[in-house]
Amino acid sequence: MQGDTRTASMQLSRDDQAKLDGFLDRLRRDARLEIGFPVAFDFDYSVLAPFLSFSLNNAGDPFMPMTYLLNSHEFEQEVVAFFAQLARAPADAWWGYVTNGSTEGNLYGLYLARELLPQGIVYFSQDSHYSVGKNLHFLNMRHIMIRAQPNGEIDYEDLRETLRIRRDAPPIIFANIGTTMKEGRDDIGRIRSILDELAIESRYIHCDAALCGGYAAFLDPPPAWNFEDGADSIAISGHKFIGSPIPCGIALARRGHVDRIGHSVAYIGSVDTTISGSRNGYTPLLLWYAIRALGIDGLRRRIVDSLGVAAYAEKRFNEIGIAAWRNPQAITVVFPQPPRSVCDKWQLATANGFSHIICMPHVRREQVDQLIRDIERAGGAEP
Amino acid sequence: MQGDTRTASMQLSRDDQAKLDGFLDRLRRDARLEIGFPVAFDFDYSVLAPFLSFSLNNAGDPFMPMTYLLNSHEFEQEVVAFFAQLARAPADAWWGYVTNGSTEGNLYGLYLARELLPQGIVYFSQDSHYSVGKNLHFLNMRHIMIRAQPNGEIDYEDLRETLRIRRDAPPIIFANIGTTMKEGRDDIGRIRSILDELAIESRYIHCDAALCGGYAAFLDPPPAWNFEDGADSIAISGHKFIGSPIPCGIALARRGHVDRIGHSVAYIGSVDTTISGSRNGYTPLLLWYAIRALGIDGLRRRIVDSLGVAAYAEKRFNEIGIAAWRNPQAITVVFPQPPRSVCDKWQLATANGFSHIICMPHVRREQVDQLIRDIERAGGAEP
Repeated sequence: MQGDTRTASMQLSRDDQAKLDGFLDRLRRDARLEIGFPVAFDFDYSVLAPFLSFSLNNAGDPFMPMTYLLNSHEFEQEVVAFFAQLARAPADAWWGYVTNGSTEGNLYGLYLARELLPQGIVYFSQDSHYSVGKNLHFLNMRHIMIRAQPNGEIDYEDLRETLRIRRDAPPIIFANIGTTMKEGRDDIGRIRSILDELAIESRYIHCDAALCGGYAAFLDPPPAWNFEDGADSIAISGHKFIGSPIPCGIALARRGHVDRIGHSVAYIGSVDTTISGSRNGYTPLLLWYAIRALGIDGLRRRIVDSLGVAAYAEKRFNEIGIAAWRNPQAITVVFPQPPRSVCDKWQLATANGFSHIICMPHVRREQVDQLIRDIERAGGAEP
Repeated sequence: MQGDTRTASMQLSRDDQAKLDGFLDRLRRDARLEIGFPVAFDFDYSVLAPFLSFSLNNAGDPFMPMTYLLNSHEFEQEVVAFFAQLARAPADAWWGYVTNGSTEGNLYGLYLARELLPQGIVYFSQDSHYSVGKNLHFLNMRHIMIRAQPNGEIDYEDLRETLRIRRDAPPIIFANIGTTMKEGRDDIGRIRSILDELAIESRYIHCDAALCGGYAAFLDPPPAWNFEDGADSIAISGHKFIGSPIPCGIALARRGHVDRIGHSVAYIGSVDTTISGSRNGYTPLLLWYAIRALGIDGLRRRIVDSLGVAAYAEKRFNEIGIAAWRNPQAITVVFPQPPRSVCDKWQLATANGFSHIICMPHVRREQVDQLIRDIERAGGAEP
């Protein structure tokens, strides 16, 4: 129901209602065993339910006025500014918007890079998210995959050698700030040094901080991931560490880059530099609520707690003789793939013989204990 | 709160709560005067609020199994099947998914077309949505803009002449099934005849049915817009005629096309042919609820009612001497731009001296009367 306009009669049949109820029950059951994916569950946004009565739409640039008044641009602006500050964006020289998730944020960063360096070649590690290949195909960009180290981080030597023999084409670095499987973090400071050594001045660095962007600023020392470290654009997920019932994220970029793109699309008579047309106006409210309710202190506490659970899990695995490990200050604990029954029960993603749990803020030590018990009962790691 | 996992303490400060309350009040006020945008407001999805406690994610192909169990793929499948049937998709030879809106659906259709016809040229009318230019730039596709007729429909003669002198490049037709300003509908049957006459066999037709896709099947006679009429892919919006608090849509395509794309991206080791990575799992539930609760009869009643309001509005304008008009069976009523104060109050989009109202299902005759009164008081149409 919306204002005093009329509302359609929208009753479900008994069968349909039962189907919906059954789905809710299933979700409640399945959620209890969900510790393998990078999404936090410990949110409560019920205060925001009334806003679902409106057809919110944040179409276009959140910093531009909009004829359609049912938008949450003012909240979106605060959200983007908050993350711009976390990512140490240069004051008054950044731009951003709330995306539908990091695939869109990464697509946006690569799009900017392509417009600025049309002859560029994209370099990304083999441990990058599978959507990167899809995005590059989509944007029709030349690219070279670089080896990853065993810990998931890009192989700097392979990168250096590959860059060295292609100094004629400007490099576009797609850096992972937390790979999907191992939370490996590419050090963009080190990558810049390589580019400097090779006297490559025309270059672009995009950071896929889908996973770590929500907490990288609170790590001590922080990884090299932000604008001061040399990023030109950054994608951060909102539904991962912050937590949200709807996938969302934040795309951030240096304002100068976005302005140059703006000019290049001016001939289509649009100042809209976002990728989507109509844009979700509800997720900016969710993210605003989270950052206002948790605050910097609350967010810092979340990552400290999560790191504690991750350290606990690593120790417990090792105690039963399973060679679990994690990157420094990582919440992802990697271990040899357990028997199929355990993977199925705990919805564990696996690749190349390894599984992981991701100690997002909702993951409790008791769940880790249960998982360990299940693995022991099933006879340890897969032979 | 989710299952028995823990929930973060998420209290807002008094100031922040007041800001949120103020925003809700403003939305309630503004919604009363919203009759100018193509979004229905008459929904009530409050039954679905409990699902916002979960981090739903429909990543990837809705018809493929998924390790992460908190997805609503089963509902998404029903939604897509429903719209495939409305669009007369060939049985068992279609594919689709729920998008974040029609910009994504159009991007998807154009992407398919580019993969199938890499040398193709995209033809679209000058009355197309501004996002088309953005999408084409993004996908780096050659394109030619065709004149539009005064009613918003593509100029078939201009199209024919332009096609005739470029028969070496396969055409990709981007057809509007309801332009943004005038609800002009390009007749894809007529366009096919032109292509046939010119003996152009290699071709692709995408329908941007963002506006009309939700009701085109219920018009009598229906416009030529569906798969039987010759469409290769179709984008439909969910938040427009159906209504939704979150922008969403349906992308539909002939299965054969999608399978060929699938092969072309197989080298990236992904069977995911959607554009987004993580995908909204809540909007499929909203759409499922709407189609199940309204049913075919309910949807048909909605468009009959809306056409009645549109006819009423056209008549009322004409009665006070304002030359309002609409396309046959259209819910968009076009009229000379009223004075600025009226446009601002009623959030009327204007272009080239014309404004419109869109008689979506929530629009009532009393609102039309109020608008007419405001225009009369302000001294009629802008001189």
